[in-house]
Formats: sequence, C-alpha cells, structure tokens
Amino acid sequence: MKREDVLMQALPYIQKFHGRSMVIKLGGHAMVDTDIMDTVIRDVVLLQLVGIKCVIVHGGGPEITEKMKAMGKKPRFVSGLRITDDDTLEVAQMVLVGKINSKIVSLVSRAGGRAVGISGNDANLIIAKKMERQKVRIDNHEEEVDLGHVGEIEEIRPAVLHTLLDNQFIPVISPLAIDRNGNDLNINADTAAGELAIALGAYKLISMTDVDGIMDRERTKVFHRMTPQDAENLIASGVVSEGMIPKVLAVLRALQGGVPYAHIINGNLAHNLIMELFTSEGVGTMITDRDDEV
Amino acid sequence: MKREDVLMQALPYIQKFHGRSMVIKLGGHAMVDTDIMDTVIRDVVLLQLVGIKCVIVHGGGPEITEKMKAMGKKPRFVSGLRITDDDTLEVAQMVLVGKINSKIVSLVSRAGGRAVGISGNDANLIIAKKMERQKVRIDNHEEEVDLGHVGEIEEIRPAVLHTLLDNQFIPVISPLAIDRNGNDLNINADTAAGELAIALGAYKLISMTDVDGIMDRERTKVFHRMTPQDAENLIASGVVSEGMIPKVLAVLRALQGGVPYAHIINGNLAHNLIMELFTSEGVGTMITDRDDEV
Amino acid sequence: MKREDVLMQALPYIQKFHGRSMVIKLGGHAMVDTDIMDTVIRDVVLLQLVGIKCVIVHGGGPEITEKMKAMGKKPRFVSGLRITDDDTLEVAQMVLVGKINSKIVSLVSRAGGRAVGISGNDANLIIAKKMERQKVRIDNHEEEVDLGHVGEIEEIRPAVLHTLLDNQFIPVISPLAIDRNGNDLNINADTAAGELAIALGAYKLISMTDVDGIMDRERTKVFHRMTPQDAENLIASGVVSEGMIPKVLAVLRALQGGVPYAHIINGNLAHNLIMELFTSEGVGTMITDRDDEV
Amino acid sequence: MKREDVLMQALPYIQKFHGRSMVIKLGGHAMVDTDIMDTVIRDVVLLQLVGIKCVIVHGGGPEITEKMKAMGKKPRFVSGLRITDDDTLEVAQMVLVGKINSKIVSLVSRAGGRAVGISGNDANLIIAKKMERQKVRIDNHEEEVDLGHVGEIEEIRPAVLHTLLDNQFIPVISPLAIDRNGNDLNINADTAAGELAIALGAYKLISMTDVDGIMDRERTKVFHRMTPQDAENLIASGVVSEGMIPKVLAVLRALQGGVPYAHIINGNLAHNLIMELFTSEGVGTMITDRDDEV
Amino acid sequence: MKREDVLMQALPYIQKFHGRSMVIKLGGHAMVDTDIMDTVIRDVVLLQLVGIKCVIVHGGGPEITEKMKAMGKKPRFVSGLRITDDDTLEVAQMVLVGKINSKIVSLVSRAGGRAVGISGNDANLIIAKKMERQKVRIDNHEEEVDLGHVGEIEEIRPAVLHTLLDNQFIPVISPLAIDRNGNDLNINADTAAGELAIALGAYKLISMTDVDGIMDRERTKVFHRMTPQDAENLIASGVVSEGMIPKVLAVLRALQGGVPYAHIINGNLAHNLIMELFTSEGVGTMITDRDDEV
Amino acid sequence: MKREDVLMQALPYIQKFHGRSMVIKLGGHAMVDTDIMDTVIRDVVLLQLVGIKCVIVHGGGPEITEKMKAMGKKPRFVSGLRITDDDTLEVAQMVLVGKINSKIVSLVSRAGGRAVGISGNDANLIIAKKMERQKVRIDNHEEEVDLGHVGEIEEIRPAVLHTLLDNQFIPVISPLAIDRNGNDLNINADTAAGELAIALGAYKLISMTDVDGIMDRERTKVFHRMTPQDAENLIASGVVSEGMIPKVLAVLRALQGGVPYAHIINGNLAHNLIMELFTSEGVGTMITDRDDEV
Repeated sequence: MKREDVLMQALPYIQKFHGRSMVIKLGGHAMVDTDIMDTVIRDVVLLQLVGIKCVIVHGGGPEITEKMKAMGKKPRFVSGLRITDDDTLEVAQMVLVGKINSKIVSLVSRAGGRAVGISGNDANLIIAKKMERQKVRIDNHEEEVDLGHVGEIEEIRPAVLHTLLDNQFIPVISPLAIDRNGNDLNINADTAAGELAIALGAYKLISMTDVDGIMDRERTKVFHRMTPQDAENLIASGVVSEGMIPKVLAVLRALQGGVPYAHIINGNLAHNLIMELFTSEGVGTMITDRDDEV
Repeated sequence: MKREDVLMQALPYIQKFHGRSMVIKLGGHAMVDTDIMDTVIRDVVLLQLVGIKCVIVHGGGPEITEKMKAMGKKPRFVSGLRITDDDTLEVAQMVLVGKINSKIVSLVSRAGGRAVGISGNDANLIIAKKMERQKVRIDNHEEEVDLGHVGEIEEIRPAVLHTLLDNQFIPVISPLAIDRNGNDLNINADTAAGELAIALGAYKLISMTDVDGIMDRERTKVFHRMTPQDAENLIASGVVSEGMIPKVLAVLRALQGGVPYAHIINGNLAHNLIMELFTSEGVGTMITDRDDEV
Repeated sequence: MKREDVLMQALPYIQKFHGRSMVIKLGGHAMVDTDIMDTVIRDVVLLQLVGIKCVIVHGGGPEITEKMKAMGKKPRFVSGLRITDDDTLEVAQMVLVGKINSKIVSLVSRAGGRAVGISGNDANLIIAKKMERQKVRIDNHEEEVDLGHVGEIEEIRPAVLHTLLDNQFIPVISPLAIDRNGNDLNINADTAAGELAIALGAYKLISMTDVDGIMDRERTKVFHRMTPQDAENLIASGVVSEGMIPKVLAVLRALQGGVPYAHIINGNLAHNLIMELFTSEGVGTMITDRDDEV
Repeated sequence: MKREDVLMQALPYIQKFHGRSMVIKLGGHAMVDTDIMDTVIRDVVLLQLVGIKCVIVHGGGPEITEKMKAMGKKPRFVSGLRITDDDTLEVAQMVLVGKINSKIVSLVSRAGGRAVGISGNDANLIIAKKMERQKVRIDNHEEEVDLGHVGEIEEIRPAVLHTLLDNQFIPVISPLAIDRNGNDLNINADTAAGELAIALGAYKLISMTDVDGIMDRERTKVFHRMTPQDAENLIASGVVSEGMIPKVLAVLRALQGGVPYAHIINGNLAHNLIMELFTSEGVGTMITDRDDEV
Repeated sequence: MKREDVLMQALPYIQKFHGRSMVIKLGGHAMVDTDIMDTVIRDVVLLQLVGIKCVIVHGGGPEITEKMKAMGKKPRFVSGLRITDDDTLEVAQMVLVGKINSKIVSLVSRAGGRAVGISGNDANLIIAKKMERQKVRIDNHEEEVDLGHVGEIEEIRPAVLHTLLDNQFIPVISPLAIDRNGNDLNINADTAAGELAIALGAYKLISMTDVDGIMDRERTKVFHRMTPQDAENLIASGVVSEGMIPKVLAVLRALQGGVPYAHIINGNLAHNLIMELFTSEGVGTMITDRDDEV
Repeated sequence: MKREDVLMQALPYIQKFHGRSMVIKLGGHAMVDTDIMDTVIRDVVLLQLVGIKCVIVHGGGPEITEKMKAMGKKPRFVSGLRITDDDTLEVAQMVLVGKINSKIVSLVSRAGGRAVGISGNDANLIIAKKMERQKVRIDNHEEEVDLGHVGEIEEIRPAVLHTLLDNQFIPVISPLAIDRNGNDLNINADTAAGELAIALGAYKLISMTDVDGIMDRERTKVFHRMTPQDAENLIASGVVSEGMIPKVLAVLRALQGGVPYAHIINGNLAHNLIMELFTSEGVGTMITDRDDEV
C-alpha cells in the first residue's frame, strides 16, 4: 500500500478518537526489551499528537522478583500469589517507580513527548485498603493467607490526571496506592488500569501483553472481536485459562463500569498499538458490547 | 513500506507542525476535477486533525471566464491582464464565493471537518485599494490601462481567522477584498495567500498548482529545495517563466515577510500535500532560507 | 420630540434586549433597493452596539429567477413551486452566497460593523434531507412532483454562530443546507430563520417583508399585537392569504419552538426595525403568547 | 427630527465609545435637585448599556456645610479654604458616603442599573498624604494654615474599579482617601476625578457643574471646543475666573496625564450628558489636543 | 504552649475551612471600642489569608441613637422598637455607611487587607419591602404601629459579593436595603447576616456580641455546643431571654436555610474569633445539627 | 505566649509570602528519621495552606550508599566524589524516586496535602549534559576523573511545575536529569534546588541541613542574617568549611540568579521551618542583599 494511502486510511479513526482518553496497560513481560518498549512508547506519543489523551499504567512483577534475588532476598509466593512483606514492598516501590516508570518517562522524552511519572499515592490518586486474608489451597487443604502490603482499590481521585492531560502531559502510573492512614500498598496493575479507565471515562482500555489476544482452544487463531458475554463463556469453557484469566476479568470489569471498548494485544510486536487502533481488521482482540464499526 | 512504518515516519513532522498555522493556496486549474479536489481537501482535514491550523485560499480565474462566456458576456483581457468591469466583478463574486468556495466547504464537510467559507470582505479581513493604472505594451507601444475593480492589498485584519481557527473551523477564503469606502474589489489569489500567511505568522505557505514545482530548464527534474536567492536567480535567468513567475514572486514576498517555508507543489496528484509535508524527500519545491531539516 | 428624549425612551428597551439574540429575516423583495437595504443594515449594526446579538438570514428568490433569465435559462415552476434542477441550484448558490450575502456583508462593513457571511453548509450549520415528492394540483388533478435539490431541515448545529456572536461578528446566512452525504440543498429562507431562532434560543424572530404586517381584511389597518391563536384564526378565515401564509406559518413554528416574540414588519420603510423594537406602539405586527409590555 | 433619525445619528458616537471608560464628575451643587440628578443618572445608565464603562465621582461641599450647621457645628474657612477638623471629617464622611453616595446608588437602581458605592479608602483605591500647610493671605499678610484632615493624592490603585467595571457594575466614588498609616482624609473631588481618569486610562473626563461650560468674557457664549493651551490662556487673561479655575486646572491635569478628551458641561439641564456625547455640536466645552471629529 | 505547636494545631482547621465562605456579624455594642474592633478586624484579615472568604455585616443601633441626640433629634421607640421616620433613616444611613462601615474598611486597610464597603442597596444586593404594621402592647392594650422605613428582606442578589470575594476583596455590608421601587429601607443586621449567609451558601455564620455565648440559667457557664433543638428549648424555657432571643432566632433561621454551623461569641475579648474557629474547645457557643468534630 | 498572639504575629509574614513560591531543599541526612521528616512535611503543608507555592527538592546520598552496600555493591568515591557507574545510577534512581520521593509524597498525603513526585527527567524538567572530567588530587598528583552518569544542569523547563502549583499540588523533585539524547543523569540536589528556584522566580530558597546554619569559627553561635558578600568572606577565611561549602555556594548562585532570600536551617529540629519563616528573629541563617525587614 502506498504511503499516502496509509495515512488517509487512518483519517476516520483519528477523527473518531480525537479528544478521547485511553488507558494503556503495559505488561511487565513486555518491558524487558528496551527496543520493543521504545516502539510502544513512540506509538503512544503519536496517539497523543493526533489528539488522544493517553494514560500509561505499567506493571513490573518479573523485575521485582529478579531484583529481590539480586539483592539476596527470597521472594515468597503462596499458591502463585506474592506475599508482599516489608522488604518486598520496599523493593517493589524502588523497581516500579524508580526504575520502570523512570525508564518509560525517559523513552517518552526521547520520542519527543512529555511524560510525568506518578504512582497511585501521588496526589491521593488511588486510595486502597489492605486486602483481606485470601483463601488458597495448599496441599489439599484450604488456608487463609495474609498477602501483606497488598491493596484493594476503594476510590480513584483523578484530579491530578485531568490536570496533566489538560496540559498535554502523558501520565505514567506505577501500580501503588495509599490507604486512608497514609500507608503504601502494592496493587495489581491490570485492576488499576481498569479502575482508572472507569474513573476517567476513558474511551478505550488497551491491555498490552505477550500473547496475540484471546485465542481459540488450539491457539491457532486470534478472535478479533467479541462481546463481554463471549469472553465470559470462553473463561467458563476453559478456553481462556491461567494468566489470561485475570487480564480478561480486569477488562470485563472496566466494560461493566462504562468503558466502551477494551483491547488485548501483543506488546512485543512493533507498532501493534497503531495497527490495532488505526486499521479496520486490527491485530489483537477487541471486546465490546457495541456493534458499530471501529 | 509497511503501514505502521509510514505512520511512524510521519511522527517527527507531526510534532514539528503541531499548533502551527499553514496557508494553502488552491489554484484555479486544480479545481476543475472534483475527485482531485476531494483528495486535496481530505489531506487538509487530516492536517487539521494532527494539530495544524489550516487556512485555504482559492483562486478561480478559469471558471470565471467560462461562466462569463456561458452568460453571453465577453471577458476582456489586455496583454493577458483581465479587465474587471462591473459585470465581471459580479460574475467573479458569484463564481468565487457562490460556487468554488461553497464547493470546498461542502467537501470539507464530507471529509468530516468543519469549514467556514468567507471572502476578504467578511469582517474586513482584507482591506485593499483600487489598483493604479498599469503600463502594458500593446502593439509595440506602452499604454496605461485601468484594470477596473481590481485591488492591491493594504491591510489584513486577521481577527476573524483567529476566531475560527481557535474554534477548530477551517477558514476557506475567496480572493475578494473591500476598500475603505466599502466597495468590493477582486484581488489576486496568490498575493492574498501570501499576505494572509504573513499576517497570521504562518509557518508555511503552500501553493498548489498544476505543475510539479520549480523545474530545471529542460523541464525534466524538480528542484526539491532552494533558497529565495536561488529562486530569484532562476527568474532572472529565464528558467522560471510565464505563469510561474507571479506564483514564485508571491511566495518570495511571503518569505520576505517572515513566513519561514514556502512550497510549490502539484495539486493534481493525489495526496501530494501529505507527501510534501510528511516525508523528508518531498514531491515539489520547498523554498526557504533556513538550513534545518524539514 | 426632542432628540435626547428619544434616546431616553429607548433606554428600557435597550435594557430588556441587552445580551439577547435576535434572528432577522430579510425578504428577497426588500433587497432590490440598495438604499433601503443600507438603512436596514445600519439599524442592525446599531442593535449590535447596544448589546443585541443579531443574526441575519436572507432570501433571494426574485434575484435567482432574474439571473437565470439573464443566463438564458428558464426557471421552472409547478403550481408556484420552484423546481430546483442542477442548473438552478448552481445559480441559486451563486446568487445567494456570491451576490446577496456578499452585498449584505459589505453594507455591514460600511456601517462600521463586522459581518461574516456563511451559508447553511458552512460548518454543517444546517443539516437537511431532500424534500419528499410534493402533491400539487395541476389542471384539476393531483400529481406528485419532485422539487429537485430542495431540502427540509433536520438539524441545526449552531456552534459556528455562537463562535461568531461571542466574538462580536454578525453572521449573515444564506438559505442553503447540506445533507448527511455532503450534497447541497436549497432551503426556504423563512423556515431557516425560524429554525435558527429556535436553535439559538433567540428572544425575537423578526421577519422583514414588503408589507406593513398582518392586516385586516380590508388592508386598511395593521394589527400591532396578536397571539399565535389570533394568527391561526386569521389564516383559517382567509384574512391572511397567499404569500403571507408561509411567512406567518414560519413564525408560528418558531413561537411553538420556544421563541417568545415574532415580528412581521415592512423592510422597505427606513428604520422600521428600530421603530418596531424601541417604541411601545411599534410599526408592524408582533405575535406573542406573553402578555407583558414590550 | 424624527425619532429614528436621532437614534441613527448616535450610531457613530456609540461605535467610537464602545468599550472605553469615562469618568463623570458630579458637582455638589448639581446634586441638590433629585429630579435633575435622576436624569443625569439615567443618562449614565444609558451610556453603560451602549458599552461605555462609566465611573461616577461625586462632590458634596455644600451639603457638608449645611449638615454641620444643622448639627450646631460651625464650619470653618480660611480665605475660602475649608478647615477639616475631626468633627468636620466625621460629618464629611457621613454626608458623602452615607448620604450622597447612597442616593446616587439608589438612583442607578431605579434606572435599572447596578451601582456599587465606594470611597477612596475602600480597597486602598486612593492613597493620599496629609496636605502640607498652605500659604494664604489673611488681612494683607501671608500666613501658613493647617487645613486639617485634607489629603493630596499620591497613588491610585484601580484594581477594585477594574473588578467592578469588568462585571458591569457602575462604581460611584466619594472623595475620601486613606494615608499610608490608615488614616482617613478628605480630598478634592475634581482632583480625584482627574487622577482616577488618568489611572484608568479613561477616554473622557466629564465634569458636570452648574454653568454651561467655559464662556467668553461677557458670559454670552459657550466655547464648544478648545485646546489645553486655549484654556490656559483664558485663565491667564482672567476670562476663566474664581470657582471655575480649579475645575479647569483639574481637567487640564488629566489631559496632561494622557486622558484625550475633557468636557465641562452643565449638569442642571436634563440630558446634557447625552447631548454632549452623542451630537456633533455638543452643548458644553470640550478641551482636547486632538483635532479629529468627536 | 510553644509557638510552633499553636500554628501546627491550627492546621486541620485551616484545611477544613479553606475556600469556604463565612459571614461575620459585628454587633453595634462591640464596635464602640476601636482597639477591640481592630483586633477583630485583624482576625478577619488572617482568616482571609488562610483561604476563607469573609463577609462582614455590621449593625449600629447605639451609634444611631447617640448621633440623633447629638443632632438634637429625639429617637422614637414604641415598646422597644425603633420608629424609623425620614430623619431617622437619613441619620441611620449616614452613621451606618458613612461612619461605621468606613471605619471598618479603614481598619482592614491598616491590617493589610482590602475591603469594599457596600450596603444592601448597592448593586441591588438586598431587596426588601416595607414591613407591615406590627402589633405591640402599649399600656395593656394591643396596637398596630407603623415602624416607618424598615424593611423585611425579600430577596438577596449576591452577584456583587461573588465578584468581590473572587477578587480577594472583603465585603463590609451595612444593614440597609432597597425596595422594588428604589426606596431605601433600614433592616435588622442579624437578619441580614443570616439571609446573606444562606444566599452565599456560607459554611459558618458567626454572630459577635457582647456576651460570651448562650449561657445557663445562672449565667455561670457557656454552652460550647448545642443543636438547633437545644437552642429552641432554651428559648421556650426562658433561659435564653431578652436581647439574646432575636440573635438566636436569626442564627436558627440561617441553620434552617442550610448554613451548617452558627456561632455566637463575645466580640469584646481579643482574638475570640480565632480561638473559636481554630481550637477544638472554642470559646463561645456553636449551634449545629451535624455531629462531626470541627 | 498566648495561642492567639502567636497566630496574630504570623499575620504580616503570611501576608508577605502569600502567592509567592519557595523551593525547599531537604538534605539526605535529615531524612533518616521519619518523625522528623513528618514534622517538616506538616510545616510545608501549612505553608501551602496560607498561600505559599512550595516545591520540595530532596537529596539522598547516604541512602544510596547504604542501599548499594545492602545489595553487595561497592560504592566508589575518588577524593570524596562519587563515581556513578551504571549500577550506581540504577540504585540511585530506585532509591531517590522509588523510595525517598515516594515516602515524602505519602507523608504529604498523611498531613492532608496533595503532592506529586517527579524527577528531573519528567516532562524534561531538568536538561543536563554529562559532566566533564574533573581534576582531583590523588596521592599528591592531579588526575582527571570521569565521574560517570553525573550531569551539569543546562536548562530548566518549569512548565510542569507551573501546571502542578497552579492546581494546588506540591511538586516533590528527585535530583535526576535527562540529557538531550534522553539519557538519565544523576545531579547534585543543592544545585538543582538553586536552579529550580531561579527558573521559577522563587521568593526564597530554603536549604534544610543537619546543622543550625552558618556558624562562627567556634561553632557557638549562628549568624541569623548576612549578605552574600559576608558569606563569601566566611568561605574565604575558612570559617565556612567542608560539607557546608557546596551548600553555601549553591544558595549564593541562586541569589545571584535573582532569588531574593536564601535560608540555611537545621531540618532535624521540629518546626524550624515555621519558626524561620514566621518569626522576626528566625532560627537559622538568612542570606540576602536586601535590607528590609522580613
């Protein structure tokens, strides 16, 4: 296709998205390779230039585990759930805010944009409470486990996001929160992205992972469009499984909360974000109840 | 080139142009074919969406002549200069404002934008005075000719343009003016575009014609970039000749008045406007004193 | 009456109208005499100076017919309804936008105001759909006639008017519209004025014609004030007849749509507009459901 | 002259004055007759409605003297200069602010406007210092006299006036000031009006007195227009004399400070203010260095 | 207590009150001693600096009576109610606006703030109607008495207050009003303060009197906090009596109208205002239906 | 001193500082004790509430060293200058942004304020270039040393600070910067605070350290006020020595750049910040060229 035709085909999408806000979740795995991350960030800066208000939410589980090991500390998991003790919280904050968030902010600068890195405790953006003890199965019996400094979101106060977005800054958000007594808490990045999308009245929530989208049972083809009901059925029937389940549940929660479109796409392939948003076929999975084009 | 790469290559240009204003002159010849005009207008709407403040100035000489003939009136020219008598002025107004301008406005609507068609007498946008008698050579002797209701621009009052641009409307301007006593005058569209670009502090003046740009003596290759001095030399040496001379002089005047970049491109080829602005090589001729990229 | 007393008597009216918007319809017949038109326009500029937001809507039927004849084209009417074929639409656009509208804009300039001439297809101001085939009586039988490029108003998007009015420009509107596919359509000026008045939340709709207002059966006296019900009765009883019927129906529709006052006055008498608005007796007919003074 | 012609003749003046500010000094004598004052105030409200930002400054000497007598106190004068002791200051404040200012505010309300009565000590509007001892001739010898709580203006802080004017309130100002230690001082109303006009960048200073303007030696004719130099000559030659001298000096000082036009008119004749501003001949004396019309 | 601890203890109160408005009623008795008044005004200026929007309403009964006597006029009372005849109204205006209000404005200046003194007839702030004849007991029989120029509040138009508060001016209001025909009326200052608090959506109404608050029957202890119901019971049981009754009724009316907190405190003790607002114990009586700490 | 007197004594300072901005540098040592830090932060929140625009800049050298050791990495110093290799930069970022900055932000939340933690690379706030090789004395000879990823400030782009301050957020800034190619650099916190104060046009730069201010040679008394010249003399004479030298040089540079007042105070004593700003005697050292009271 000719260069100019590509630009012209993007026109109706640019018109539709102009002035709307989108929350883009960058998965922890996708952020290992700086080159990949760089193309993702360039896509985001392009989106902002054509008038889309972008908010980036990032995760960072793998890097936290890795850094803890490097510091000679042993990450603890019970049934796959991380136990966030004092040491873990400290490392999580340092890695999320001091390393990953800073890196994203620098990449935005290099791409010519202006980002402001914040976390959920800045300006009381995300108010959470300590998560209740979770029931988990350990060796054939159920046990209640205290996950430590892990929070469950109670309230979003998006004032600081509006201030930044209205002044053409891209907010980059680390998944940390603050409780009503001022204590820091670690929170799940997928859930945070969803709640932020709801609180902002975002037009789209885009979850960038390391798979191509929601796939069929044989993992041979990606579903490009489905309804929330379809997604629930795929979970129930076991087609969506394991690590994909919490991601899908997080975007379903956002759809329920009024976000009209959610996307799950592969962040490891260059410019997938642009391709998903600006072409009719798309590259990953879009979940929506609406039946309009786009 | 892959679709996404095209979009990404446009990124630095979009960043550079964001928030700036550009005056786009549409030549009368280019406007005969509605399909061509339609792609030009789509380009302009795309420019606006990526944050460029676009002002369209159109001409219309050929259509005026044609319409006069259709009405049984004989257009008069002396040495190639049109004599604008009362009848001609009336037809010019009707054709420029009532036909060409309206058509451009409708095409912007179809492309999803919002245009407001005005002429130089709206809101006292262009104040002119009747042009003095011109010396022309007729049959080997020089004679002074009164060109009729033709004006020479004295002042631009751009308030109405700022009002429209700040509210995301695309102004489409017919080359008519008003004198200080409220009389209508026909003015040259190239000159008007240049003066408007100066008064607006425009970043670029883009003259869309029916040739590919400024070409060498053999008409085999387009100069893609030159300085105002180069252009003057080409006029002096006769390489730039005939109808191209007034177009080049008009953009040189704009460059002198502080507009940093002027472009002369072929409006008959689809998406030439996008190609000229968003690629490093360009397709037509850019004239500038600056030696930066872009 | 002494000069200063006149000014002081105008005071309560000026106070009442300050900051309100009024739509003033100029009839096609009234616009033949430039001197008359000039006094009308001076009145409008005065209204704006005392804080009234004025919108001018003009017609132009007679001039279209005349111009078509001058161009050797035969205007077609079926039972008094104009058939707007391609040629007619082109001439209508040229005459309305390129001639009448431009003339009004120039007159505003001469009177010291700033007008911006637009038509219903600028900035998608008036969205219409092609009128359905009309049943008309021809030679004792009823027939369905396609009136051509004639539209029925579906939606007003007044954004451009607010932009202009808030910046002290007087919008001058030609009765053309655009359909949802971007095709131009001719529309009735009285209807357009009424719909614009409703969409703007105008305080008054003033229809300037070539008769003195609604008159009694003997055409000897003007009714200075009546209710919408009165006006309907006068139509039913045949006192209001012929060309006056559509004008009265248009203002009744505006009153139904929430415009509190409608006036029908003679535009051929100098300063009738000022006299109607700024004196208690008035000169034409005011139709309103309210029973307050003014 | 016909009613509508009067209004139309006012048009160019209204256009010229629109958005400009004028300071109107109401003399103490003129304020004895409530009916006269009422017509003056109606004129001011009309001026505001046509877009002029009006500031009223009032005096009140005669009423202060009268009220002191009524309270059994003896006003003291030395060579015609009032001695403002503690008692006099208290009465002056009560009469100026509590009586005259309040009355003007109420009259504005009745005329449909909104006034806010303040004095020079509100919001530190007028900063003054106690006047130095004045040399006066008493019985053939010169003596230095302490005039008491009388101030000489040092600084105007017009913030509160801009706040009120920008919100369509008419400020009504009593001639009192505050010194840098917070002590109240009486000041001359003519001087205050002049300094306020300068600080506001007013277009006109209008001094309303009980004579018809500056007259010739025989007191038979009013000079309708003169330059500041003319006025100085008339003082030097004794044609302008006695009570008129300080009034003329005050407006000359304002002209020197950049106010382009000053007027001295008779406030006792109904609607003189309107007549002076809105007719070419005027009724009183205009002093200006400019030689344009108006 | 250490200096810095005092400031830090004030912090939560400052946070709670920031951006809210408070109406402060200064009683006539409290205003006899300039030193006391000076400390009250300094407190108000401090409140404004920490972000509270303060409105001062003052009374002045005792000074009116005193001034009338000084002028040889006899104040008339029937059963303790003042009869406001023409003379009384004139003196009331002069004393309230010209003396007390001016004095407060000057004190604000000295304390470094900016006040604007207005009365209820400025900008139509307080619209009232003449009070109906009141039934009073005279010598064992009931009689209807015309209280003269005394008004009952019908409407508050707070526009001028918002204009002043939004521009960091402190409005100082004299208890005068205007009726719908433009006549001045005297009104009760406590009632005016309450109605202004309601119209402004004030957070607190603070009535500064010459007693320590609402006290028990033996006058030995102040109730620091009570509900509106408590206050009504104390009136019914006669514990609240005489001059205190109208003050308590006025604040109860404000509480009913939506003002959340009312305070009655002694204005004669230095800095009581600060102490009441910025300490948990307080010094006077707070009446509120809310049961939060404040 | 009585509680209310303390508040009233603060009044003139609050008035003087209202609306001005202050940059507060928190030294790394001062931040070890959370309780101390908590009182400092409460002071800052109080400052903001009384209308001061506060910007916090923090250091963190000691914590970086400590954390490196905990991670088994050896901090390298040459002649007391830290060598910032890749590992050190990573730890510095994690500790500064992820730990110290986050902690300050949380403390602001607990104190009822809203902070936004950013570093110099957010929104291109601080543009630096890699520091040139430094000459240092090692074992009696001079050697050039590459300090690694350490920057020298070239430009401050304070847009993001204005956006945050104008919306009542407290910016908390980590001393990191970005070079023109998007590489991260560590920078000196004192220097950063000084440059930010200059770029913001701050009224005061307050350096909080762990000594009481600039002291005499015997370390027995603090100089409470001095001129920049005094400070330079004290450095020249060796009275100011060692670690204090760079702090004093940084504030002198800010004073040179136009910041009118600099303070060096002990951040380890509770509420020293309040005491320094709101009392005439102060507690630490103020350096200024001005000779007014403050």
